[in-house]
Amino acid sequence: MCIIGSSGHYGYALEELSEDFEIAAIAPGVLNEDISHLLFKLERLSLKPRVYENYSEMLKVEKPDVVVINTHFYMNGRILQEVLQMGIHAFVEKPIATNLKDLERIQELYLLLKKEVRFAAMFGLRYKAWFLTAKHIVESGAIGDIRLMNAQKSYKLGERPAFFRKRETFGGTLAWVGIHAIDWIHWISNKRFVSVCALHSRMANRNHAELEVTGACLFELEQEVIATVSVDYLRPEGVETHDDDRLRIVGTKGVLEVTEGRVKLIDEDGTRFVPLTEGGRIFKDFLNCVLGKNECMVSEQQSIYATYIALKAMEAADNHTTIRF
Amino acid sequence: MCIIGSSGHYGYALEELSEDFEIAAIAPGVLNEDISHLLFKLERLSLKPRVYENYSEMLKVEKPDVVVINTHFYMNGRILQEVLQMGIHAFVEKPIATNLKDLERIQELYLLLKKEVRFAAMFGLRYKAWFLTAKHIVESGAIGDIRLMNAQKSYKLGERPAFFRKRETFGGTLAWVGIHAIDWIHWISNKRFVSVCALHSRMANRNHAELEVTGACLFELEQEVIATVSVDYLRPEGVETHDDDRLRIVGTKGVLEVTEGRVKLIDEDGTRFVPLTEGGRIFKDFLNCVLGKNECMVSEQQSIYATYIALKAMEAADNHTTIRF
Repeated sequence: MCIIGSSGHYGYALEELSEDFEIAAIAPGVLNEDISHLLFKLERLSLKPRVYENYSEMLKVEKPDVVVINTHFYMNGRILQEVLQMGIHAFVEKPIATNLKDLERIQELYLLLKKEVRFAAMFGLRYKAWFLTAKHIVESGAIGDIRLMNAQKSYKLGERPAFFRKRETFGGTLAWVGIHAIDWIHWISNKRFVSVCALHSRMANRNHAELEVTGACLFELEQEVIATVSVDYLRPEGVETHDDDRLRIVGTKGVLEVTEGRVKLIDEDGTRFVPLTEGGRIFKDFLNCVLGKNECMVSEQQSIYATYIALKAMEAADNHTTIRF
Repeated sequence: MCIIGSSGHYGYALEELSEDFEIAAIAPGVLNEDISHLLFKLERLSLKPRVYENYSEMLKVEKPDVVVINTHFYMNGRILQEVLQMGIHAFVEKPIATNLKDLERIQELYLLLKKEVRFAAMFGLRYKAWFLTAKHIVESGAIGDIRLMNAQKSYKLGERPAFFRKRETFGGTLAWVGIHAIDWIHWISNKRFVSVCALHSRMANRNHAELEVTGACLFELEQEVIATVSVDYLRPEGVETHDDDRLRIVGTKGVLEVTEGRVKLIDEDGTRFVPLTEGGRIFKDFLNCVLGKNECMVSEQQSIYATYIALKAMEAADNHTTIRF
């Protein structure tokens, strides 16, 4: 395995170290990428992979089976294309592209490769016990048919690196943060999006230039299901946890809520917290998929689709318009 | 005082019985309106107002100082016009009109009457201790400048009377229920709306014909403030409380949340519930305004404005479009 870049969630891969695979080499994905904290973490794990300055060189020499791609966001989609064309499986940061052109080429490659080369976006949040529990409860039929969903992402801003401050290199907050909420909605409802209307704002972004710190989307899904997404980078720095992820699912028989790592069910029997099922591990799931043992819960199609919807939400917000799919 | 109809929140007036005013007479607002539960409640209070079949007749004979208007919703705006023209103060159900034509005439009357005849919409939820507390905390500057708001209204459906099942007589769920959330947003942020995009659906309305049971709005306000509203009639019947009102206010210095009658503040010092200020009483506030003792917290302008925004949200949802103000 090789790791390209360290600007995203490579941690999912480091969690899964075992005898099954070796981290052979690492490289930055762009010239000015700081990969020192990845090096530091590997050192603490007593790992000494080879370090390349150029990821293309690394891929040619090392010929890895699997690559983890998480460099400055605008490059993830381009590197994914290169890697897939070389027949290398890829665990790639979400969004898997920051523009529709890159995404279209990835879609073409996906159709061409017919799942002989696998990839998955880093939708690791799906594997949290609370989201898996919510998914299972919905599938059990306990809340009936889904009619309305409200999803929230709230993050601390802190001091973000320079590439977050340019749309061109960052891709946008609805694409980077909002995509998780978009993925939850699609994954749990199993419905396709019909339209999106969205807003975002850079005001109060504490000198983060082009970074949007607030945003919201209104989605219509199939069968007139309605969904809202709220995104912000205004969570106070002093709070215990980095994020405040929430999902509310209103069904014909009950309401399910994911908040603060718990799952609340509201139905005819009243309101109660439900026991959590066991959490999962995304990179393990992906490796098992590569090994042909199972399908990864995050499919290629879903990785492409959630990215597509997130990019269209960005477009809707930029243009103050509603986009129909 | 006279009461016209009993299809809304006349209860606010019954709460305030005192020696200061007398309920002289009541009448239905439309021919087929069932006012038996109002009669029943008055009887329990040992009150025996005169009962008219026709409210116009009642107004001519009784010449009341104040009228409470809460009949089938489509008539509230028409009766409000009549009453104001007669120089009678009106405590009127929200929305104060179910179509823009009625609302325009009310606006004209408002300008003409120069506050010599007073009226207020039944935004009684503002006076709940938790919403007043939220308002005070925002005004104290504790959360800085508001950047994002998420409001939720969730109600049990039960069995609604026939006039709820026709758009023409009901006005629509975003107008009837969503208007509260719209009012909170405007009242607490003190910002005007710039645009609205909205959706609603009648699916899964348990044989309620034209009644929408889900809906959501995405609002832009001045200074790029973003707000979402989520409305549903799918709260399970078995739950303890009728409603699940929520408001989340994200500011530059902190986040404030109203949920389950409590107020949570998230700021640099962490997360905590704040003590509630005392609740208020809307009808008392309105009567004091009529008596010239104070201005009512729900102004005529706000009653008109929230109704206008709610009706435009309905229009946006009906036409799947974004409306700019």
